[in-house]
Amino acid sequence: MQRPLILVTNDDGIVAPGIKALIEVASQHGEVVVVAPDQPQSGKGHAITLNNPLRLRKVDLFDDIIAYECTGTPVDCVKLAKNVLFKDRTIALCVSGINHGSNASINIIYSGTMSAAMESSLEGIDSIGFSLLDFSFDADFTGAKHYADIIIKQVLEKGLQSCNLLNVNIPNVPLEEIKGIKVCKQAEGVWVEEFREAKDPRDQTYYWLTGEFVNLDKDVNTDIGWLEQNYVSVVPSGHDLTRHQALAPMSYLNIEQSNMVSHG
Amino acid sequence: MQRPLILVTNDDGIVAPGIKALIEVASQHGEVVVVAPDQPQSGKGHAITLNNPLRLRKVDLFDDIIAYECTGTPVDCVKLAKNVLFKDRTIALCVSGINHGSNASINIIYSGTMSAAMESSLEGIDSIGFSLLDFSFDADFTGAKHYADIIIKQVLEKGLQSCNLLNVNIPNVPLEEIKGIKVCKQAEGVWVEEFREAKDPRDQTYYWLTGEFVNLDKDVNTDIGWLEQNYVSVVPSGHDLTRHQALAPMSYLNIEQSNMVSHG
Repeated sequence: MQRPLILVTNDDGIVAPGIKALIEVASQHGEVVVVAPDQPQSGKGHAITLNNPLRLRKVDLFDDIIAYECTGTPVDCVKLAKNVLFKDRTIALCVSGINHGSNASINIIYSGTMSAAMESSLEGIDSIGFSLLDFSFDADFTGAKHYADIIIKQVLEKGLQSCNLLNVNIPNVPLEEIKGIKVCKQAEGVWVEEFREAKDPRDQTYYWLTGEFVNLDKDVNTDIGWLEQNYVSVVPSGHDLTRHQALAPMSYLNIEQSNMVSHG
Repeated sequence: MQRPLILVTNDDGIVAPGIKALIEVASQHGEVVVVAPDQPQSGKGHAITLNNPLRLRKVDLFDDIIAYECTGTPVDCVKLAKNVLFKDRTIALCVSGINHGSNASINIIYSGTMSAAMESSLEGIDSIGFSLLDFSFDADFTGAKHYADIIIKQVLEKGLQSCNLLNVNIPNVPLEEIKGIKVCKQAEGVWVEEFREAKDPRDQTYYWLTGEFVNLDKDVNTDIGWLEQNYVSVVPSGHDLTRHQALAPMSYLNIEQSNMVSHG
């Protein structure tokens, strides 16, 4: 029986420990191929490269696994994997990460890791983004690998249902302290921003983004809520940004030109 | 009476004709301030600049209007406007655009114009992104300005209800052929990608993204559906990517660690 083809990507770059961890897990479940950025791309959101050429370079980093580094964004990596490198094959699953740092709540919107997974989901591929709540290079991926293994196995067996994208976050505690997995919704939150203002050597002012995430959600059945209780959070996600509950209240903007007196 | 403060931004850059058109419209309704990228940032999605400093430069491009160009992404522009430049004032409305090109359907996800508007909505500001279905530099913004004027006026009077973000797209036809405004949902669609493959002067292969958008939505009550009938489309939008209808079907992933035999 042919093993399913699993595409692995990330946003921390192809040499990040997180992608190595994910490759090790994914290899247990299928034939793994890797296309990932050649440099860190955190916070790149759903950026694509329109005005510059992209390059791919085959690398020998992961034993016998076919792997390419790409000069573009995480989303570019997925597009090149799907439409150039493996266009004649069926990608059964795309996994992105394991990200060094949380992508819970609204961080899904800023995240290159999740944007890569969303891109592959837009292209019709079942996709999962994994993130560990530890920003450090030498994060301990033991717990994250254990649960990524369970989730990938289950998803390959049972399929993604009524969705084709999961946002998985893993608490930064030892494996034995992780209590389990909770399927839940994205928490409402906000970044309270600050900018560090300073002067460069030529006495010109510059600003550097910093800030603090604040959970605004009182409901505990959210990714943030369960992560705080040491559960792995799984948010079934999509790409429909329509706020359906606003369609009726906002209908005051429905205007027929034929009813207008003039174009003024 | 103090006029409401309206922040104008875009992704095509501060010298694009589209932002000039939007500034002209917004100035009819409030005190306008401008913070926009110093170079084109199309397709930058929700990218933020984490690893580099940002700079702001005051520019004198729009008569008496306070305007800054920024070295960052559209989202960076909004963050700097809200948290540095105008942190002591209340921004009543953020308008982004007028984009040169469509941001209907899933293009909201790739769009710097819509990501800027989404960022301000995340920060609690009522926000509207405007896009004209014409990519060219010398696009005719007459119809777009006319309808942007109507929408901004209505929104300032009646408020955004059950949402704080609108994705407005304007068909590329003469004003008199625009039939009116329709509030509707985001169409389901997909980019069918191709990459142009070529060799650089050093005989190295490069890839350049191209592609074609395909509307997959049979429902005509969508942004794409109404735009094709020469209506302005208005999609009330949000930032909750949870696919709520998948929460129950995906509950097979709910696992309690205490029920597991071992961490094996």
